[in-house]
Amino acid sequence: MSTAALPDAFLRALSDGFPADFLTREPGELAEYGRDWTKVHTPAPTAVAFPRTTDEVARLMALCHAHRVAVVPSGGRTGLAAGAVAARGELVLSLQRMNHMGPVDVLGGTVRVQAGAVTEAVHQHCAPYGLTWPVDFASKGSSHVGGNIATNAGGVKVIRYGLTRQWVLGLQVVTARGEVLELNGALEKNNTGMDLRQLFIGSEGTLGVITEATLKLTRLPGKQEVFLFAVPDVAAVLKLFRDARQAPLSISAYEFFTDKCLARVQRHRKLRSPFEAPSGCYVLLEAEAADAAAVEGWLGSLFERGLVTDGTQAQGVSQATELWALRESISESLSATGMPHKNDIALPIAALEAFCGELDAFFQARYPDWEICLFGHIGDGNLHVNVMKPEGMDKAEFLAHTKPADHDIFALVRKHGGSISAEHGIGLLKKDYLSYTRTPAELELLRAIKRTMDPENLLNPGKILDP
Amino acid sequence: MSTAALPDAFLRALSDGFPADFLTREPGELAEYGRDWTKVHTPAPTAVAFPRTTDEVARLMALCHAHRVAVVPSGGRTGLAAGAVAARGELVLSLQRMNHMGPVDVLGGTVRVQAGAVTEAVHQHCAPYGLTWPVDFASKGSSHVGGNIATNAGGVKVIRYGLTRQWVLGLQVVTARGEVLELNGALEKNNTGMDLRQLFIGSEGTLGVITEATLKLTRLPGKQEVFLFAVPDVAAVLKLFRDARQAPLSISAYEFFTDKCLARVQRHRKLRSPFEAPSGCYVLLEAEAADAAAVEGWLGSLFERGLVTDGTQAQGVSQATELWALRESISESLSATGMPHKNDIALPIAALEAFCGELDAFFQARYPDWEICLFGHIGDGNLHVNVMKPEGMDKAEFLAHTKPADHDIFALVRKHGGSISAEHGIGLLKKDYLSYTRTPAELELLRAIKRTMDPENLLNPGKILDP
Repeated sequence: MSTAALPDAFLRALSDGFPADFLTREPGELAEYGRDWTKVHTPAPTAVAFPRTTDEVARLMALCHAHRVAVVPSGGRTGLAAGAVAARGELVLSLQRMNHMGPVDVLGGTVRVQAGAVTEAVHQHCAPYGLTWPVDFASKGSSHVGGNIATNAGGVKVIRYGLTRQWVLGLQVVTARGEVLELNGALEKNNTGMDLRQLFIGSEGTLGVITEATLKLTRLPGKQEVFLFAVPDVAAVLKLFRDARQAPLSISAYEFFTDKCLARVQRHRKLRSPFEAPSGCYVLLEAEAADAAAVEGWLGSLFERGLVTDGTQAQGVSQATELWALRESISESLSATGMPHKNDIALPIAALEAFCGELDAFFQARYPDWEICLFGHIGDGNLHVNVMKPEGMDKAEFLAHTKPADHDIFALVRKHGGSISAEHGIGLLKKDYLSYTRTPAELELLRAIKRTMDPENLLNPGKILDP
Repeated sequence: MSTAALPDAFLRALSDGFPADFLTREPGELAEYGRDWTKVHTPAPTAVAFPRTTDEVARLMALCHAHRVAVVPSGGRTGLAAGAVAARGELVLSLQRMNHMGPVDVLGGTVRVQAGAVTEAVHQHCAPYGLTWPVDFASKGSSHVGGNIATNAGGVKVIRYGLTRQWVLGLQVVTARGEVLELNGALEKNNTGMDLRQLFIGSEGTLGVITEATLKLTRLPGKQEVFLFAVPDVAAVLKLFRDARQAPLSISAYEFFTDKCLARVQRHRKLRSPFEAPSGCYVLLEAEAADAAAVEGWLGSLFERGLVTDGTQAQGVSQATELWALRESISESLSATGMPHKNDIALPIAALEAFCGELDAFFQARYPDWEICLFGHIGDGNLHVNVMKPEGMDKAEFLAHTKPADHDIFALVRKHGGSISAEHGIGLLKKDYLSYTRTPAELELLRAIKRTMDPENLLNPGKILDP
C-alpha cells in the first residue's frame, strides 16, 4: 500500500472533520513514526495521525473501518519486537498528543491518564504524594503508559510488583469499529463476568486502541539495600535465590549476569568489579530490610554456609548506583563491544538450572566458537540470552546461523515449559516462532477472538499472528 | 429437561466408556449437587458426573457437545450468586474427585493441583514449607480451587494480596468441544499474545471447565497485629484508612462495620465490645508491623489528631481472635437475629463517602423503617449492604420491596462508577442487573466471545447473561 492507496473519500473525511495538523505524510515523519527500537523491518506507513482526544480516535477508527484502512497504534516506540512497526503501508495512530494526566487520587491510590503519558512522567506526577506506578524499566523516559499496557511491560521490579497487568484498574479502549469501551473504572473488585480489560492488556494493539487508563498506585518503597554477590554457577544463583526468599528481606530485584557479561562491561565502561577474584556468576540483590541486625546475621551466614564466594553491600546511594551500573550497562556494553543476537526467554524457575546446563551443552557442541552472554531477571525466570558474533565471522554468515540456532534454543525452551518471549512481546519479530510456546488449540482460539473483535483485520495486522 | 431427556446414545456412551460410579441420577444427590449456598432457585439437574481425570472431563465434554447436553461445572458449591446451581436440567460436572495436589515447588514457589482441591487443604499442604496460597475467606474449608479461580474469589486479604487472579500461573481448561488447553504453565512472565488464562478466570464456568492449575505461592506472613478502632462515621473510616496507608505498617486487612452490625453480633453471640461507649462505625485493622516503636507512635498520634475516638490493640492471639470474631460473626448474626437482604457492591474508594451518604438518604426517604447493616472490605471499596426486614413486616411484602430497592441502589452504584458485584459474581442471581455495571457495548462483546467459545451454549447456560 502506498500513500496513493489511501482512499480519496477517506482523506476528504479527515480534512473535513479533523484539525489541520491531524495527519502528516511528510517522509521524515513517516520514517520516524513507522519504527520502534528494532531495525529488522523497513518502516513504510502511509500516514501518521495525531489525535488529541478519545473522540478523535473513535471517529478516526470508524472512518478507517468504513474505508478498510489498516492502523498501527503507536506509543513511545521503544518496543523490542517490532510490535509498533508500520511495515505494510498502514496508517500510524500516534497517541503522543494524548498525554494528559489527571489529579492523583491519594485516598484511592489511583490516577487517570491518557495513553500517551510517558511512564517516567507518571512517576514524577505521583511522587510528591508518596505514591508511584511501579512499572519501571530502562526506556521509561520515552515509553508511553498505553504501550506499557498494550505490551504488559515487565522490567527490573517484577519480582516485587508483578507485571503491568497488576497495576491497571480501568481501561478506555476504542474498538476496530470505533466504539469506545470503558472497562472497570477505578474498581479494585468487580466480578461481573469476564474481565474484558485483560483481553487488551498484552495484546499489542491487535484488538483495540488504548486511549486512557486508571492506574493503580502503590506507596513509594522504603530505603533499599543493594548487594552484589559472587557465586560459581547458575546452580548457586538459584540456591542463593531460594535462601534470599526466606531471609528477613523484602526483595525488589534479583538480577544475575555471568562473568562474560561483566568482562564486556569492564571493557566498554571501564567499570571495576568490587571483587578481587573473578567468578562464574554474579547476583545483584535489591531489598528493603527492616531489621538491619537480622540482615547482617543472614549475610554472615551466607559465607559460613558456602552460599556465596564473595559479596558486598552498598554503603550509600553512590555505591548502590555503582553496583547497579554493572548490571544496567550490560546491554549497551554487548552492543558496543560486538554484535549480539538477542533472545528474551522465560522458564519455570524450577527448570532454570537444567535449561541453562542444556543450553550450554548445545552451544558447546554446535557453536563452540560463540560467546554466550547470559543475564536477566532470574527471580522471575526471565533470561536474556545474547549470542555474540565471533570476531572473525562475517555478519551475513552469523545471521544465517542464528535462525536455525533460535529454532534449537526455542525447542529447548518448549521442552522445559518455557516462553519464547518473557517481556518483549511477539510483534513481527517473533511471530514465526510462536508455535514453540502456544499450542495449535491456543493459536486457533487466539485467531477466533481476533476475528470476533476485528473481523476486517484492520488493527495492527500481521502482529503476533496472521488471521 | 427431565432425566428422561438425556439421549439414550449419550447414556450408552457414558456407561461404555467410563467407570460404573461415574454418573449418578439418585434424587438426593441431584438435589445436593445441583445447589450452592443460595436458596432462590430450585436445583433440578438431570445427572451428576464425577470424573477423576482431565481425560475423563475431556471425553465427557466431547460427548456432551456431540449430544448437545448442557453442563454445569461444579466445585465446593459455596457460591453466593447461584453460579453453580443447575436449575434447568443440566448435567452437573462435579470436580470433587479431582483433588490431587502435587509436590510443593519450593524454589519456584508454586504448586500444581487439580481443580477439586479444597482451598484450605492447599493452605495446609504448603504451610510446612513456609508458603501459602493467599486466597482466604470464610468458606475455605469447603470451596475448591477451581471454583475460586472460576469466580476470581476475593476475601479478607485482598487489600494485601489482590484477588485470586493474581495467584494463578497456569491453567488447564477443557473447552466446550472437549479440547484440553494448557495455558501458561508455571511461568511468571510470558508475553506471547493475548493471555487466555485471564478469559477463564472469573467467567463462572461459562467458557470452559478448569481442571488443573499451577498456583503461585507466597511466603507465610509474619506476625500480625490486630487493632480495633471506634470512629464516628464513614467519613472518619476513610480518613483513618488514608492515614493507615502511610503508617509504618503493611496492611493485611482493613474491615469496617457499623454500630447496627455490632449490636446484632452482641445480641446473637453475646460478645462484648472492647469499648465503653458506642460509636457509629468500627474499623478492624490487621497489619504486619516491623517497627513496634514507630507503630506505638502512630497509634498515639491517632488520638492526638482526633482520627479515632477509641481504639485497642490485641495483646496475643486470643485477643486478636476475639476482635476478629466481632467482624466475622456479622453475617451469621444478621441471619440469626432477622432476615437480611444482601448486596455485595464495590465503589471506587474515592466515591465511598458520597455513596454512603446518598444511600443513607435514600433509605431514610423511601424506607425509613428498614434497618441497614453496612460492613465490608472497605479498603478494597467493597461494601456488603444488608437490608433487614422490619420486625412486623410480612416476608412476601418485604421481598416485593427489595427488588425495586435493588434497582434504586444499583442506579446509585452506577452513578458513582461502582460494581453491582464486587466478589460474589453474577450467576443467576444478579444477571437481571448486569446492565447497571456493564454498558451495551460490553454486553455485546461478552456475548460475542461466549458465542465464539461455546457456540451451542452448553457451558453453564444462562449464567451471567443469556446469548
